[in-house]
Amino acid sequence: MAERGRFITLEGGEGAGKSTQIRLLAEALRADGRQVVTTREPGGSPGAEAIRNLLVNGDVGRWLPVSEALLLSAARYDHVQRTILPALEQGQWVLCDRFADSTSAYQGDGHGLDKALLAQLRGIAVGETQPDLTLILDIDPAIGLARAAARNGGEDRYEQMKLDFHRRLRAGYLAIAAAEPERCAIIDAAQGIDAIQAAIRQTVRDRLGGLR
Amino acid sequence: MAERGRFITLEGGEGAGKSTQIRLLAEALRADGRQVVTTREPGGSPGAEAIRNLLVNGDVGRWLPVSEALLLSAARYDHVQRTILPALEQGQWVLCDRFADSTSAYQGDGHGLDKALLAQLRGIAVGETQPDLTLILDIDPAIGLARAAARNGGEDRYEQMKLDFHRRLRAGYLAIAAAEPERCAIIDAAQGIDAIQAAIRQTVRDRLGGLR
Repeated sequence: MAERGRFITLEGGEGAGKSTQIRLLAEALRADGRQVVTTREPGGSPGAEAIRNLLVNGDVGRWLPVSEALLLSAARYDHVQRTILPALEQGQWVLCDRFADSTSAYQGDGHGLDKALLAQLRGIAVGETQPDLTLILDIDPAIGLARAAARNGGEDRYEQMKLDFHRRLRAGYLAIAAAEPERCAIIDAAQGIDAIQAAIRQTVRDRLGGLR
Repeated sequence: MAERGRFITLEGGEGAGKSTQIRLLAEALRADGRQVVTTREPGGSPGAEAIRNLLVNGDVGRWLPVSEALLLSAARYDHVQRTILPALEQGQWVLCDRFADSTSAYQGDGHGLDKALLAQLRGIAVGETQPDLTLILDIDPAIGLARAAARNGGEDRYEQMKLDFHRRLRAGYLAIAAAEPERCAIIDAAQGIDAIQAAIRQTVRDRLGGLR
C-alpha cells in the first residue's frame, strides 16, 4: 500500500493569488516525482460542484448565513469522502483552493455566525481529514480586491461585499494561524508571484519534507 | 398584532396519504375561518426547492447519508425562516407535508446515521420553531408502497428502496411518537380517506382547539 499523501490547503481573501500559486506548487511537486491532485472549494466532486452552483449564482441575499454554512458543509463532506480521502489513501498529494477555514472566516468573522455552530459543522464535514498544512496567503484587502476586480471573473457574489467585511476575513484568517501554528503558515501575498511561490515551496519543504 | 398561528406537520412513510389528508385538513380549517398555508419538505421556499431538486433527482447513491442530512437541514432552515415563521407570525396555520421527523426516520432509522448528529442538525435547522402538533400517518409499509407505486409519480428515488428500510422507518416514527406524546399523535392510515380525515380533525380539535 502506498504511503499516505499530504493534504495542503490554500486560504486567503479575494485576489491573494491562490489559484496561480496552487498551479505553480503542483508543477514543482510533480517535477519532484509526486502525484498531485489540485481541487477547490466549494466544489471538487460532482455533488459538491452541483452545490457550488447553488452558492455562487443569484443575489447576494439568496442564502441566509446558516443555510450557506450548511450547504458548504454538505459540499465539503462529499468532497472529502469522494475526492480528497481516496486520493490521500492512494498516496497522492492533494492541493485544495479553500477549505474549512474559509467557512470559519467568511461565515464566522464575515457574517457573524456563531463559532460554536461552525465548529460543530466542521466536525461533521471534515472529521479526521484535517489538512497537514494550511498556507494562508495574507494581503491587504484593498489590494486584493483591486486584483480580483482586474481579473473580472463571472462568479463575483463575494467580491461585491464591502471592504469592512474583507478586513474581518483577514483578521479571522490571522486568528486561525495564531491558534494553530503547527498546521498553518502565513505567506505574504503582497509580494510578486515568484517570491510568493518561493516562500510557499520553502514552507512545504520545512513542514512536510516535500520538494527534497 | 395577530395571534400566532399553529404549526402542524404530517409524517409517515410512502403511500400513507399525507398530501390528500393535508388538502382535506386545509379545506376544513379554511371553512372554519382560519388562514392556512400548506407546504412540504424538502422544499417550501425558493431556496429549499432548489435544494430539493438536488435531492430527488439522480441515482440512489448520488448523496452519502451525511451529505443528504446536511442538504435537508439547509433546505429546512431556509423553509422555516422564509416561509413557516413569517406565516405563523401573521396568524396563519401552517400545514407541512414532512418536517424534521422525516430526517430522523429516513437518515437515522433508515440509513443508520448517528442520532446525536441528527439532533445537532435539527437544533441548527429548526431552532425554536417546533411543530405544535405532528400527525404520524401509520401504515404497514407493504400496503403503503403498493399505494405509492399505483400513484406512479416521477420522484421515486426513496420508493425504490427495500421493504426492510421502510419497516425501520415505521419503527422510527412510532418511537418518536412514544418519546414525544404531547407533540405527536398516531393516525391509523390503513383506513379509508374519510375515516383518516375524521381522525385527524378530531385530533386537531382535541389538541389545538382548532375546528370549533
